[in-house]
Amino acid sequence: MTGTKQAGIDRTSGVALWRQIADDIRVAIGAGEFREAGKLPGEMALAERFGVNRHTVRAAISALQNEGIVKAKAGRGTEILSDLRLKMPISRRTRFSTGLGGQARRPETAYIAAGEAAASDEVAAALAIAPGSLCVTLESLGLADGIPVSLAFHYFPAARFAGIAEHFRRERSVTRSFAAMGLADYVRVSTDISARHADEYERDWLRLTPGGIVLEALAVNADLEGVPVQYSRTRFSAGRVSLHVGTDGEL
Amino acid sequence: MTGTKQAGIDRTSGVALWRQIADDIRVAIGAGEFREAGKLPGEMALAERFGVNRHTVRAAISALQNEGIVKAKAGRGTEILSDLRLKMPISRRTRFSTGLGGQARRPETAYIAAGEAAASDEVAAALAIAPGSLCVTLESLGLADGIPVSLAFHYFPAARFAGIAEHFRRERSVTRSFAAMGLADYVRVSTDISARHADEYERDWLRLTPGGIVLEALAVNADLEGVPVQYSRTRFSAGRVSLHVGTDGEL
Repeated sequence: MTGTKQAGIDRTSGVALWRQIADDIRVAIGAGEFREAGKLPGEMALAERFGVNRHTVRAAISALQNEGIVKAKAGRGTEILSDLRLKMPISRRTRFSTGLGGQARRPETAYIAAGEAAASDEVAAALAIAPGSLCVTLESLGLADGIPVSLAFHYFPAARFAGIAEHFRRERSVTRSFAAMGLADYVRVSTDISARHADEYERDWLRLTPGGIVLEALAVNADLEGVPVQYSRTRFSAGRVSLHVGTDGEL
Repeated sequence: MTGTKQAGIDRTSGVALWRQIADDIRVAIGAGEFREAGKLPGEMALAERFGVNRHTVRAAISALQNEGIVKAKAGRGTEILSDLRLKMPISRRTRFSTGLGGQARRPETAYIAAGEAAASDEVAAALAIAPGSLCVTLESLGLADGIPVSLAFHYFPAARFAGIAEHFRRERSVTRSFAAMGLADYVRVSTDISARHADEYERDWLRLTPGGIVLEALAVNADLEGVPVQYSRTRFSAGRVSLHVGTDGEL
């Protein structure tokens, strides 16, 4: 160990101090450290705890405020809005809208873009179609109580789902768009989960601060006969969402 | 967008340039960009591509080498050793040893430490025991082909599994340790997955470079009657491992 460490902060790491402090405070909030007070300690106390100046503490608090975790209130300190990550269930029955239903007062899906694309080898393998086959593409943003939590890029085989983008623009739901096209039910076949730093585009949409992390889920959905109907790449804001995998039978 | 962006690199982010470049190169390797050549472009070419100097490129390559992804060979450039993350399956039948079996030539588990601890509220809830009940604790490192890929901290109810640490020291396997204590089979009940920056302790064990990311999995295993037998907190090196959730029936 280097002797430059203070309260979890490492001055030799490749990550800005305010980002490390924001991460540390988020973990402390999640562990319930400030639950009784309902707010963060003052700037001076935090500056002392982490061995940094008040500007660095302010940058960290500002990052947490952008993420919707705290809110600075004039004369009342920095209130804690949410002390836990949303838990997104991953199961055979995974749907975004119902997944966050009980935890967010207002789960929403916003339409970003639609288009078409030839299937790459990766997309073709996931959808069990020939490479180069036409796909409908759709990009959407998931929000919980007005805070962006996920950015998704979806592929649908165009041979079967031409026109699904129009349904999605109206319905704001993949499940209802499938239903409108005659697919009443579908199941999650597989989900591959990895983590990395968000790129600039993802940070813009997810309102992440520099150095922010995304959980990336590559998911295949299929109809009840097992034929793939959708391949999605969803980036979840790692500070706002965790993924829950129940494997003890059906969820 | 800020105008300071070049080939995915953002000089305004809280992450060191070499770390961003290492991340970018890792993604490019995963996407198969250098598969034909089998090695990375030269330092000069990479410096030009990212708009940085050779020292920064060298730091990025050094980080990837520490992660076991590339290896610089005298006079032959930087060879790509592995172009894909290991896929750790998460299912009812999840075990570390068999999970990486087909992908790593040598999956290994190393013993780090053992002890005992009173169950915190979190541990007690996971194991369905009273808060404060005694647990056996065990810490272990998972390696694939000699490269550390996971750092795990396990809790077992001491009332049932006193002595399991001794078995584990000999067997280097939780499954075999359970078997030695008369528990022939067990199943994964749930796994909660989140992502964050690795702390200094995790970076030491997982040989991560500053700014490195871990996937953290909180897992509960139970006997075949559903009684929890193990609660684990496993940190996977996000650059080396992705998690695969199959939800189309049993895996």
